[in-house]
Amino acid sequence: MSSKSLCRVISAAKIAEPFKAELQAGIARLGVSPVLRAFLANQDPSAKEYAEWTAKTAREIGFTFELEEIRKEHLEAAILDANKDPAVNGIMNYWPVFSDVKEDARVQQQVTPLKDVEGFSSIFIENLYKNVRYFDPPANMIQSILPATPLALVKALEHVAVYNPLLERGSRLYGKTITIVNRSDIVGRPLAALCANDGATVYSVDVTGIRKYTRDRLQLSCHRWEDVDMTMKQAASISDVVICGVPSEDFKFPSAAMKDGAIAINFSSAKNFDKDSIKEHASIYVPTIGKVTITMLLRNL
Amino acid sequence: MSSKSLCRVISAAKIAEPFKAELQAGIARLGVSPVLRAFLANQDPSAKEYAEWTAKTAREIGFTFELEEIRKEHLEAAILDANKDPAVNGIMNYWPVFSDVKEDARVQQQVTPLKDVEGFSSIFIENLYKNVRYFDPPANMIQSILPATPLALVKALEHVAVYNPLLERGSRLYGKTITIVNRSDIVGRPLAALCANDGATVYSVDVTGIRKYTRDRLQLSCHRWEDVDMTMKQAASISDVVICGVPSEDFKFPSAAMKDGAIAINFSSAKNFDKDSIKEHASIYVPTIGKVTITMLLRNL
Repeated sequence: MSSKSLCRVISAAKIAEPFKAELQAGIARLGVSPVLRAFLANQDPSAKEYAEWTAKTAREIGFTFELEEIRKEHLEAAILDANKDPAVNGIMNYWPVFSDVKEDARVQQQVTPLKDVEGFSSIFIENLYKNVRYFDPPANMIQSILPATPLALVKALEHVAVYNPLLERGSRLYGKTITIVNRSDIVGRPLAALCANDGATVYSVDVTGIRKYTRDRLQLSCHRWEDVDMTMKQAASISDVVICGVPSEDFKFPSAAMKDGAIAINFSSAKNFDKDSIKEHASIYVPTIGKVTITMLLRNL
Repeated sequence: MSSKSLCRVISAAKIAEPFKAELQAGIARLGVSPVLRAFLANQDPSAKEYAEWTAKTAREIGFTFELEEIRKEHLEAAILDANKDPAVNGIMNYWPVFSDVKEDARVQQQVTPLKDVEGFSSIFIENLYKNVRYFDPPANMIQSILPATPLALVKALEHVAVYNPLLERGSRLYGKTITIVNRSDIVGRPLAALCANDGATVYSVDVTGIRKYTRDRLQLSCHRWEDVDMTMKQAASISDVVICGVPSEDFKFPSAAMKDGAIAINFSSAKNFDKDSIKEHASIYVPTIGKVTITMLLRNL
């Protein structure tokens, strides 16, 4: 094993750069500082840290970020107040809050779509799965909001040239194969749908098995999926990109299973790729995505 | 089968455009019109037609193209004269000329490397196979000339974004798999070497079988090859790109064997891909490459 590696490591900061610049210019033109109100109702130290990063990025770009630490019992009422408050332009929250996933989902839906920067409102999620790209068809003046982390991952895929700019918009992943290790409702599943809607073949991996998401080659409307009988390693061996988001330090993706020279992206706060091993097998490695996600939240705002 | 196709057809003229513009600007700066002397010693009507295209392109860019129709017995002497003639900046010829391949090769080597625009001089070919990129190591001021058609195909691969600009120069095909159906000494074999030198896995196909060209993952010096026991269809099914150059109207590449959404490039004067079938399976199809080759000849000049 040589110490020489061909792998290029690309930081989230680098990917976020052009979007930050674009937002800065937009806000300068606007002449006002849009207000994002964020509620921190859990005791998770990593959520706190993430909120601090968001505050820093918001300040750099010119947004006003108001963080409110709050008891979980008061969260719903605070959201309803913020919906009505004309001084608040966007609302976000740090999940999970309640021990019951359904309670999280219910409170989440209280945020009005007009102020939802996370893109979790049912209407946006439904649009995403149906490959409807506008909020106001048939006028199609307002783009539908995409959830911030999946959107950040799409921007990362564009940055590392997995999207082919020569192909038609909406089909720029045609011919590409992507393995996504995570099928959560807030990242992995919408991301699989987004990538398939853009033409990719996606292997979506979780503990229950592997699903293959595709779009009919000649139809542009929407993706579909089927369960497939293969292993994560088999999926990785035929993929151009492996995206991991397993929230556990115990999970390490077996880098040697990847196609030599494929692209690796991690969006988990845990390090899902061993940094030495991945550099031996990948051509490009994106170790974190958080700063892109923050920028996308602000962009949605 | 729907009439709707996602395949984008890209013309050689489109690929050649930026290079033509660059050459035009360069010649305008230079203030003189470099002279390319071309010898037509065979009776091949397609060579004649190709010469006419070259004349047209040279005129558009600002080169002086002197076509000399000549008897094959006089070719060698004419080349030696042109080598010495200070009014001639570049020399090319339309091959094949003699019925004996070795006689072609011998006469070809009479062109001085200093005026060789085709890139067939032994020194250039040797540099190419050894992955030596300069004519004058260790000074490395003058780039080694690459044979025009392989170079044109490399430029086509760059245009269609198979080269990843985020990777280091010299490794931008790392992670890509390419099938090349043609292993001639003047195109297929040097092209396989060039692509492997840039990091690709190449399946080189001819009637005798399939060779796999690779470069050691962590070493940058040079490619290597081995015979592999597989079929052309198997190679195509795992390739991101299929490049065909079979000089026969009878040969049609089986488009359905390609990976859905792969890229197809034809450099044969015959149509190696059926135009309807390839559009059903490829994301990008480059039907000819001749105009890029002509531009590369002039660029080498």
